[in-house]
Amino acid sequence: MTTTHDATEVQMAPWTNGAAYSDGGFCSIEQAKISVLDMGLTRSDCTYDVVHVWNGRFFRLDAHIDRFLESMARLRLDAGHDRAGLEDILHEVVRRSGLRDSYVSMTCTRGRPAPGSRDLRTCRNNFYCFAVPFIWITTPEQQRTGVHMWISDIPRIPPESVDPVVKNYHWLDFDMALFDAYDHDAQLVVLGDLSGAVTEGAGYNIFAHVDGRWLTPATGALRGVTRQTVIDLVTAAGGIVEQGRLSADDLRRANEVLVTSTAGGVMPVTTLHGQPVGDGMPGPRTRELHDLYWSSHEDPAWSTPVRA
Amino acid sequence: MTTTHDATEVQMAPWTNGAAYSDGGFCSIEQAKISVLDMGLTRSDCTYDVVHVWNGRFFRLDAHIDRFLESMARLRLDAGHDRAGLEDILHEVVRRSGLRDSYVSMTCTRGRPAPGSRDLRTCRNNFYCFAVPFIWITTPEQQRTGVHMWISDIPRIPPESVDPVVKNYHWLDFDMALFDAYDHDAQLVVLGDLSGAVTEGAGYNIFAHVDGRWLTPATGALRGVTRQTVIDLVTAAGGIVEQGRLSADDLRRANEVLVTSTAGGVMPVTTLHGQPVGDGMPGPRTRELHDLYWSSHEDPAWSTPVRA
Repeated sequence: MTTTHDATEVQMAPWTNGAAYSDGGFCSIEQAKISVLDMGLTRSDCTYDVVHVWNGRFFRLDAHIDRFLESMARLRLDAGHDRAGLEDILHEVVRRSGLRDSYVSMTCTRGRPAPGSRDLRTCRNNFYCFAVPFIWITTPEQQRTGVHMWISDIPRIPPESVDPVVKNYHWLDFDMALFDAYDHDAQLVVLGDLSGAVTEGAGYNIFAHVDGRWLTPATGALRGVTRQTVIDLVTAAGGIVEQGRLSADDLRRANEVLVTSTAGGVMPVTTLHGQPVGDGMPGPRTRELHDLYWSSHEDPAWSTPVRA
Repeated sequence: MTTTHDATEVQMAPWTNGAAYSDGGFCSIEQAKISVLDMGLTRSDCTYDVVHVWNGRFFRLDAHIDRFLESMARLRLDAGHDRAGLEDILHEVVRRSGLRDSYVSMTCTRGRPAPGSRDLRTCRNNFYCFAVPFIWITTPEQQRTGVHMWISDIPRIPPESVDPVVKNYHWLDFDMALFDAYDHDAQLVVLGDLSGAVTEGAGYNIFAHVDGRWLTPATGALRGVTRQTVIDLVTAAGGIVEQGRLSADDLRRANEVLVTSTAGGVMPVTTLHGQPVGDGMPGPRTRELHDLYWSSHEDPAWSTPVRA
């Protein structure tokens, strides 16, 4: 009796820890694995994108798929699915997870070369994706009081070597910087380029409100979809966003600082390298942008219901 | 009858395509996989090393394990095995493969964070290794006639961002450079640093014989075990190796150029960016080093028999 009951439950239960599409089929996230010989691992030769689902709706799915397709073209990768095919798989993987709020990641790796070859042109590229419960870089609770950010001494990998516009897994600079941040009781970190200009953090873009406008790096960082959303929201409300050079000095004298990510939205930075930003509390502009961002998730222009 | 015969064969047959140690047990290379959520993949947050077995003997195993232990310490990674434990697993994985000539790779990844966390300190690090048939970056046949190398315009990821001394999978710069090389009918590629000095190629160090001595980059490259072996062999024979700055000009006017890698040993470069090196044939010094390198594999000071 117990066995039958369990079996039915397993069959009926959604994969609430996450669902994946891997090796051409759907499986639970725990079963989603790649070969230790895949060059997506052994050379980090891959690109990825992350879109989120909030309250049963994808947010700006088109923008994420646009970027994913562009990134694959840049790296000479082929997922083996066109835009419609990718959308079908993403809808299905979220549907199978049963998640209403989800972090949905898609990756195309170089794959494995032909036996006995090291020639990249012989590789069969490998596409997989998964939907897991929504991931918060900083939780809503932390966002109410604000988050501490460390300014790292480690320079971000330069765009000439690996272009951050092609979303990639080259994160050792970020992770080593994060350990530095932890050592200074900070949860977030931002890296500079070789000239000292601010670039981006470990999965987030950065904005500073300084001299009466928002300033965010024009180059050296991912062109984040949440970054673009903040630019759109500020501009629509009559504010100014300048995409230019953001120096560490600008950052230190800003009255508000925020970071943006698909994994958490618009997040206030209230302490920077041990010093308070403004009065050390989330500022009014950041709070307003945070609220605008989340309310925009019901807008049909920016969101798509997950297919039943 | 057939079934019994097959079953016996399967049980007896070594994993000649490769054997692996993964998730705490031994398996065939085809079964060796890692989770798509492992930060060794999603952040390339890992280090690895590759040692080879030739004619049933590990070559300079101590040097590889020294470097692997140092790299893990630098990245705050813990494989969960001490030197003796690592050696036991490496011997066993080669023994199970049944391979006499093998490429033996070991990796320690950051692993997965605790559920709901992104804090790297909550990750359980993941160690795996595998033995597959020996991999040649250039085959012995190609080495007889020499190999074409392209000088890439893409700068190598700088050591300040990701230190190449810590052997790592940050290879998108290499792979994009390799596509450039293919487009110019070259099989190998070498990258410069941001100042234009030569660094390393996609898995190999570089030496140029110029002005009466061998010159190899002192910085900006992995401290390869085969590189060190060439330094040891040249020095023992009364020759000179300078570890210093190797410019593209030095490279172009060298009378001999070679690359070194565990995956292939000492390999002659006979065409550089479309121009012949010297007379366009493997030079006498390179040929001699090639022979010295391979004959040193029986030397008990540098090799260890795989345990039966």
